[in-house]
Amino acid sequence: MSETPAQAAQFLALAHALADLARKETLAAFRPAGGISADNKRAEGFDPVTAADRAAEAAMRALIEAERPEDGIHGEEFGIKRGSSGLTWVLDPIDGTRGYMSGTPTWGVLIALAREEADGPGAPLLGVIDQPYIGERFWGGFGAAGSLGPLGERPLATRPARKLSEATLFSTFPEVGTSAEGAAFARLSQVARLTRYGMDCYAYALVAAGQIDLVVEAGLQAYDVAAPIAVIEAAGGLVTDWQGGPAHRGGQVIAAANRDIHAEAIALLNG
Amino acid sequence: MSETPAQAAQFLALAHALADLARKETLAAFRPAGGISADNKRAEGFDPVTAADRAAEAAMRALIEAERPEDGIHGEEFGIKRGSSGLTWVLDPIDGTRGYMSGTPTWGVLIALAREEADGPGAPLLGVIDQPYIGERFWGGFGAAGSLGPLGERPLATRPARKLSEATLFSTFPEVGTSAEGAAFARLSQVARLTRYGMDCYAYALVAAGQIDLVVEAGLQAYDVAAPIAVIEAAGGLVTDWQGGPAHRGGQVIAAANRDIHAEAIALLNG
Repeated sequence: MSETPAQAAQFLALAHALADLARKETLAAFRPAGGISADNKRAEGFDPVTAADRAAEAAMRALIEAERPEDGIHGEEFGIKRGSSGLTWVLDPIDGTRGYMSGTPTWGVLIALAREEADGPGAPLLGVIDQPYIGERFWGGFGAAGSLGPLGERPLATRPARKLSEATLFSTFPEVGTSAEGAAFARLSQVARLTRYGMDCYAYALVAAGQIDLVVEAGLQAYDVAAPIAVIEAAGGLVTDWQGGPAHRGGQVIAAANRDIHAEAIALLNG
Repeated sequence: MSETPAQAAQFLALAHALADLARKETLAAFRPAGGISADNKRAEGFDPVTAADRAAEAAMRALIEAERPEDGIHGEEFGIKRGSSGLTWVLDPIDGTRGYMSGTPTWGVLIALAREEADGPGAPLLGVIDQPYIGERFWGGFGAAGSLGPLGERPLATRPARKLSEATLFSTFPEVGTSAEGAAFARLSQVARLTRYGMDCYAYALVAAGQIDLVVEAGLQAYDVAAPIAVIEAAGGLVTDWQGGPAHRGGQVIAAANRDIHAEAIALLNG
């Protein structure tokens, strides 16, 4: 099965419409006076779920069900709806809920479309990363990528190859995964010219936009990574697990601007 | 010496004009295709200085010299010009140059006005934090504070008191200062509900905007902290060094939404 250009354009149009809905829902509750309170989704630790997460995913699911009722849906907040079309929408209404609750501008809405496989969504065909507060969107799939933000429309193209010692590396938290994963990350960080934290999904957009070289994370879910994979690959980069295999199921993820820096980073992660 | 309301309004108008100039200069060089290269200001480590830093500070200095030739200027890139008016402008054209070079939206332009003291600028009278890419500005001084951004004009008011165990703490780097300073920060971070990194001066704006409770950093310069002090204090918070004394000369800095959380945090930092 392969999509025609007309179908691809329809999928992209629906993805943009979903992002528009989520932008409205997430901004409606962003930065209230005195900040946001959160429920505690897990008994241990701090995993906030806000009403905005749920409202944004519900709005997106309703539009998918109206426009393409036979598609599956895999969302962070409301789980899995099996479809019959062979295609599944993968939704993270607010990636970076902690950043959202803190008022930062680096959380985002993640939307992807993937072929359905026996055990879940396959490699993404299309992805959108939207940052509602900045009013900035990054998208890629079916061989094309683009962005629209404060400086207008910009093409997306990842950086050319450079040495890791000249490269910029991002991760959301300095405590990357397990202690073994943290040690692997530290080997990489010690060689990279610059390591930065705290950008949530915005870091993946910066890889696609040609501004940074690497994002390395662990413990991700499929909905955290599906949209970034589609956007970065359409912009010329690559996203794999730490062994170089497929990353669309989540877990350990490395996003790289090009094959050279990917290879250098993988060697250190496994070194 | 005390300023009249008319003088205060003139100072604020000039501060906005300076921020407008710096916004134009910094955005002109932001996010080029393939990212930014940097000179290396220090022999050891990585302290990038971009052409945009220098262009933005030069533009601001030229306007101050045209409008208020008797004022002093204390800027990150071009140093100290002694004045004769008793007032000094404190300028950091790009706070968070590493973030700027990485394409993030959390660096900022810092502008403050302070009374000149024998050994440098005193406590700030007025401050502006501007984030050019988002198009967002936070200002405070002479008893008033405000902001203008993607969601329109918003008042600035810090959060009411809550326990540190319910609070959100920010710092730019996980490696906070010396090892003793890092240990003190870790005591605080272990109690706080949420610790986040990587926001540069934007974290101080989030304190003023009532979204987070604390920012704790070490090793700052006067130009890093003058504008945040003025904005946060005008919004109802307080900024001191880690012993509770004045912070406007830089060094160890704690910015707090209110006196209660400031006291709880200071006790842990010195515990």
